[in-house]
This record gives sequence, C-alpha cells and structure tokens, in this order.
Amino acid sequence: MNVDLYHFEPNANGGKPIMALHEKGIAFTSHWVDLLQFEQHSPAYLQINPKGQVPTLVHNGIVITESTPMCEYIDDAFDGPPLRPAAPLERWRMRVWMRFADEYLGPSLSMTAWKRFIGPMMRLRNPDSLKAAVAAIPTEERRIAWSTTIYDGFTEEQITESMRRLAVSAARLEEALVQSPWLAGNSYSLADIVVFNMAAALPHIVPAHASPTQTPRLLDWIKRVGDRPAIKAALALSRNSLRPLRG
Amino acid sequence: MNVDLYHFEPNANGGKPIMALHEKGIAFTSHWVDLLQFEQHSPAYLQINPKGQVPTLVHNGIVITESTPMCEYIDDAFDGPPLRPAAPLERWRMRVWMRFADEYLGPSLSMTAWKRFIGPMMRLRNPDSLKAAVAAIPTEERRIAWSTTIYDGFTEEQITESMRRLAVSAARLEEALVQSPWLAGNSYSLADIVVFNMAAALPHIVPAHASPTQTPRLLDWIKRVGDRPAIKAALALSRNSLRPLRG
Repeated sequence: MNVDLYHFEPNANGGKPIMALHEKGIAFTSHWVDLLQFEQHSPAYLQINPKGQVPTLVHNGIVITESTPMCEYIDDAFDGPPLRPAAPLERWRMRVWMRFADEYLGPSLSMTAWKRFIGPMMRLRNPDSLKAAVAAIPTEERRIAWSTTIYDGFTEEQITESMRRLAVSAARLEEALVQSPWLAGNSYSLADIVVFNMAAALPHIVPAHASPTQTPRLLDWIKRVGDRPAIKAALALSRNSLRPLRG
Repeated sequence: MNVDLYHFEPNANGGKPIMALHEKGIAFTSHWVDLLQFEQHSPAYLQINPKGQVPTLVHNGIVITESTPMCEYIDDAFDGPPLRPAAPLERWRMRVWMRFADEYLGPSLSMTAWKRFIGPMMRLRNPDSLKAAVAAIPTEERRIAWSTTIYDGFTEEQITESMRRLAVSAARLEEALVQSPWLAGNSYSLADIVVFNMAAALPHIVPAHASPTQTPRLLDWIKRVGDRPAIKAALALSRNSLRPLRG
C-alpha cells in the first residue's frame, strides 16, 4: 500500500489528514510543499493536483483532494480506530462542526492570519518575482486571494467582521464543550481533529475571547486534543514556517 | 417513529431532505414554511430552529438542521436503500460534489435568483412591513442577506462573477457525467440529490451554457434524476411559489 501526503505546516487544512492518518496508525510518505515559496503552483505539483492546493493524498495512485472529505475518506478506506461516532446523531454533529470549521471559523482565521503575518512577510520580497508568482497561480479564485493578501486589499470592515466571527466561534465551542467532552458528543472524532486545526490558534489571535477565564472548556479541550500521541506526532512535522502566527 | 420536516419549495436546500426521505421510503409529516412571508422568523418556528433557517428535520424529538449533513443523517438513521456508495473513493466523490453544490454552485444560483426574481417581488410589497420583517430576522448574516436582496444591493461585479460560476458549474458537471452515469460514479447517491436541487435550474438561468447541444450529458442526467419516482413525489409538493424562477 502506497500512501503519499503532500502538505505544508500541520495546521489549518494541512493538519487534518496528517492527524487523521496518525490516529489511524497509517504510515505515509510526507512531501513538504512550501506555500510561502508558491511550490503549490509549480509544474511538478500541478501534475498531482491541477488546482494547486494542499493537502493532497495519493493512495495507491488515487488522488484525493479537499481536506475535510479527505478525512472521511481516510476513515472509510483505512484500518485503525474509527474516527467517526457510531450514533447517527453524533455523526451529524460531527459533520455540522466540520462545516462550521470550513465555512465560518476557517475563512475568518485565514483572513486575520493573512492580514497580520503573511501579507507583511510577502511584502518584504522582490516585487517583480512576487508579481510573476501570482500570475502563475492556476485558478482565478486563488489569484485574487493571493493578490488581496500581498497588496493588503482587505477592508477594515472585513477584518472587523472576521474578528467578530472568531469571538463568536470561541463562545460556540465553549458552549458545546459544556455539553459533552468532545465536539460530536462522547467520542473523539474527525470533528475534533478538523476544528482543532483552526481553533488551537484562537487563544493567540483573540485572547480576550478565548482564555482560561473566558473559555475554560475550550482551553481544556485544546490541551486534551494536543496531548494525544497522534496529534503530537503530527505537530512534530512542523518546520515553524508560520511561527509568528503562534504569537 | 415521528418524522416531521419543515420546509419551503422542494428545491435548493429544502428539496434535499424531501427527496432523500422519499428515496428511503420514509413517511414524514410535511410542514410548509413560507420563506417569502418570512414564516421562518416567526416565534413558533424559532422555537424549533433558533437560526430561522429551513429545512429542519425533527426525528423523535431530535432537531436536525443544515440540509447536507441532514441528508447523511437520513441515510445513517433510517432503513431503506442506501444513498451513499459502498466504495470509499465514490463516497469521497459524493462529498466533494455536495461541497461544490453548497459552496460554489448554490451561492451563485441564489444570488442570481434573488437579484432577478425575489428582489423585484419583494419591492412590490409595503415598505414599512418589509422593514419590520427584516428587523425581526434573528441572525445578522441573514438580516444582511435579505436587506441586500430587498434593496438590490448586489453589485454588477458580484452578478457577473455568479453568472461566470454558473457557466463553470455546467461545464464541470458535463465533464463528470462523461466519466460516469452518476456524480459519485456508478451508483446514484446523495450527490445526485444535492446537486440536482440546484443544477436543475441551470438550463433556465444560463441557457447558453447548459443546453442539449452544449451539455447533453447534464441535460440527460437532469431528466434521469427528475424521472425517478421519489423525485417526482418530492417535486409534487411544490406550490409554485417560485414559478418565475423556472422561466
């Protein structure tokens, strides 16, 4: 069995399959794709994933993209402990949390991170080579996203709205973790993995809204997820390319 | 077993669980919620779904929201023919198509429909009662969405981008349906149900990009899905509140 994973830092979308594979006990070959060097748009990588996105899983030659459906694929296709609860209600909750991470928390967190750290890092580089790198991005959506980051095109309204959503996210997570030890209910699931990849940054990004006094259950859950051997193994892959994000 | 479904017209998000329940052969009590009369924000409905969104499924007292995770819940919790393929690869494809419907095709289609039909319909009403109805919407996101529709706040750029995405959607669906008879592969699945609820409108909204000559496979698939007894039964619930949407 061949399992190859192309990824950047073990957080956000990239962290999801790394953590899921470690939880299942599946050995895989890790291929580092440096997003900050635009390696995701290199001809070699576009052969694997024509959209130029990470992560990409290649399982016996089958290319699997999009990190959240990828996590369900990992649980469907590989042996190891189940990462989805048995009860339909808990499975539904798991999927609602994964959507929340991808549609609400994730975009707000990215915008904040891009505005604060990635944009300023990019603007230290050679403007001409940056321009060429953006022009080489294969999809229009991603070209617009990178241009906005590099040339600081976020409006104050957008940033304010993202910060508001991060505060709302912290409060919703706290509320859920008062009800049950894990996000889907009584069992640890893909919801915890997917949300952890984004929510672990909340105490650093919105410390007034995610802290031991404001959201004790959330902080405890971040610690419980982070202490799992599989999650530690995944985080050990970090090259700290995004160290400034951790405050 | 008690199964209650609160829904509007059997298309877009509302059509998904209606069709899934019919495919499984599950009897349910249908509760019509008239979105155009803002019944989704009435105190009685907010007791059931505090977010004021349709559809909502109530299964033996358990409230299930969000139409796509709801469809997976229906397949997990009820007897009847499986609506998800057995093979992990096909299941992954199914979930990628459902995300495509919810994140890409759906929002573009809504914007076009809201701009062309719902906005003009709304502006024929009493301005003061409309204003009061918007103020009563429980979430800020939905207040903004309805205000934009009612007061025609969409920019030309937004509409152009949505139309572009609808054309891209038709082309992608055609490409997939050249490969296999159903979206996930060889078996009919929740992907066909979820995408059909949006893509069935493409020949009406972007006829230059979705037609028997441009996209024969897509048109054939729309017919094959629409001819299924379960889908006919679901569509028969229509009260044609959105008849103008069908051209």
